[in-house]
Amino acid sequence: MSILARFASRLPPVREEFHCTLGEGETPLLESRAVGKQLGLNKLFFKCEHQNPTGSYKDRFIALELSLLRQSGANIVVGTSSGNTGSSLSAFAARYGIPCHLFVCERTPAGKLLQMRAHGAHVYRVKDFCVTPEATAETMRTLDVSAKKFGTKPVISAFAFSPEGMKGVGTMAYEIARQMKPSHVFLPGGGCGLHVAVARGFLDSGTPCPRVHIVQPSLNDTVVTPLREGKDRARSVNSTTRISGLAVQQVYDGHDAIAAARATKGTGFLIEDEEAWHWQRELMSKEGIWVEPAGAVSVAGLKHAVDEGVVKPHETVVCMLTGHGFKDPASAAMAIKGEEPMIDGSDIPKVLGL
Amino acid sequence: MSILARFASRLPPVREEFHCTLGEGETPLLESRAVGKQLGLNKLFFKCEHQNPTGSYKDRFIALELSLLRQSGANIVVGTSSGNTGSSLSAFAARYGIPCHLFVCERTPAGKLLQMRAHGAHVYRVKDFCVTPEATAETMRTLDVSAKKFGTKPVISAFAFSPEGMKGVGTMAYEIARQMKPSHVFLPGGGCGLHVAVARGFLDSGTPCPRVHIVQPSLNDTVVTPLREGKDRARSVNSTTRISGLAVQQVYDGHDAIAAARATKGTGFLIEDEEAWHWQRELMSKEGIWVEPAGAVSVAGLKHAVDEGVVKPHETVVCMLTGHGFKDPASAAMAIKGEEPMIDGSDIPKVLGL
Repeated sequence: MSILARFASRLPPVREEFHCTLGEGETPLLESRAVGKQLGLNKLFFKCEHQNPTGSYKDRFIALELSLLRQSGANIVVGTSSGNTGSSLSAFAARYGIPCHLFVCERTPAGKLLQMRAHGAHVYRVKDFCVTPEATAETMRTLDVSAKKFGTKPVISAFAFSPEGMKGVGTMAYEIARQMKPSHVFLPGGGCGLHVAVARGFLDSGTPCPRVHIVQPSLNDTVVTPLREGKDRARSVNSTTRISGLAVQQVYDGHDAIAAARATKGTGFLIEDEEAWHWQRELMSKEGIWVEPAGAVSVAGLKHAVDEGVVKPHETVVCMLTGHGFKDPASAAMAIKGEEPMIDGSDIPKVLGL
Repeated sequence: MSILARFASRLPPVREEFHCTLGEGETPLLESRAVGKQLGLNKLFFKCEHQNPTGSYKDRFIALELSLLRQSGANIVVGTSSGNTGSSLSAFAARYGIPCHLFVCERTPAGKLLQMRAHGAHVYRVKDFCVTPEATAETMRTLDVSAKKFGTKPVISAFAFSPEGMKGVGTMAYEIARQMKPSHVFLPGGGCGLHVAVARGFLDSGTPCPRVHIVQPSLNDTVVTPLREGKDRARSVNSTTRISGLAVQQVYDGHDAIAAARATKGTGFLIEDEEAWHWQRELMSKEGIWVEPAGAVSVAGLKHAVDEGVVKPHETVVCMLTGHGFKDPASAAMAIKGEEPMIDGSDIPKVLGL
């Protein structure tokens, strides 16, 4: 069943003939066995958003956004993406027979384009886009004007651009609230639309609201420091993080994220890129969960929160795991040393120490 | 919730402290939008098993098998795999802190080993294993003897080796039966343990049993021709299919699969490797679903069944999609021609035809 059918009363109205779904949502809420103990916590859960149809939580956004666009008569979609939004949009657009044009950063690596192109999207790399502010601004402006000529608008996973569709992301809060009442929720932050959606989802869920925290790489600190310093405004930065998906130097939903965090009594935590990779490896080797580095950022932030005494051992905590490890296989390969040995069948007892 | 908790009354008993889960099962049953119409069918559904935690239905097998092994006191697991079983076993073993040793075919490509090794399994390639019958037989024998010395047994996804654990795979039939009453179910067949599990699951589900069909590559025809010729015994073949995961030259569960197919009034269909790739591309480009080639084999078989008149337009049909496309990215890359163009931001209207 689609998120639109399950949460119709809480989402913008879409007539059933325009509902889009790939089976998104209802992702597992899996109890930690090892990481929680390591951190001295009794009740740590992972919301496994990487198990969505195209491997990330963006499917919740696209399911609603594309439904609204179809209802408005759009017969073409255009968007920008560094990876996961593009993959999701291309898959949904393929399913609903809508031509999809994606304009991606000049330096988007070939591997990230595979999923988009496999679903038949028209993908264009744009020179200097995401590199120089001038080219980025011109691309966004031209894209907006072009989309309008088709009677539509660009699909970009931020409230600043797609405020109705982003409400779809809040459905993960509704799902968690039906299953448990956590005290804390940890989310990775790039443009921070994910945080705004989930925080508002909990505030709107009619259950006691957890503290919804934002975790950013210190090399992309648009929101966390202003939030912790009591300021109301996010800031653009010169982003140098290597955590794919969280390198968002613009403010986008940053101001709203600061407000949403405060409304839930949440705060922010900064982590180094190395910490994301460390917790990605811990999740793989001790929890059996394979996420991309951005997907482990929430856990890295939780470690800081425990060290600062923000989270207490008896409290129920949910960490959001956002994207599947297959999105960035090179990061998993980093954790592996050497080649697997070649043996003879008769060597099996020996290698098993028998 | 684990498949063990959801279907406890129908599975071998496991005490709760030994339950293993990664959030497997409850996969979407997604209605076709394009492929069904192409085939002249009104009610075609895809059971999206590729959305399981490690990307394949094998998680249902390993969840139960590892639970039973833990209950029996095993503190090490050993297994063989061409890919998906090994990925699943390594992930579950990591989560439950059990050392995992996997013995894989000499020619297993490096990419297929990444997921196993990322979860910390000890992976050994075995010289001539899966290449010469002598080396294969010796490896299996040595593995069995070695496992016994640890008080355990090899984990292999076939009723012939792991009959209790394979009942976990039947839970997908229980899930489908709760949602609808299909007339036909199509499954890919290698060793055919999947077919035995699902057919028995439907027979056991207490609802009208669909016809459960087997689809094999003609280059690995261990079961389909004997089944269609009215024989009771499968046969070993010289397998030359290039569909990864379905190259199983031994009989394994073949005799049981013939019996299970007959019990459900199901039959068999042979396809060429090219048909699997064709339907993989159709699923990607017209349904927004990214599966590995083996995952599209059920759809290729359905096409034959429609052409033969076995399936009628008004009947409800379920095709099992077994493994995620990320398992075999090279097969998706085959569908993509050329490089994405590099443009300037000001070129956007031009490429959109404005």
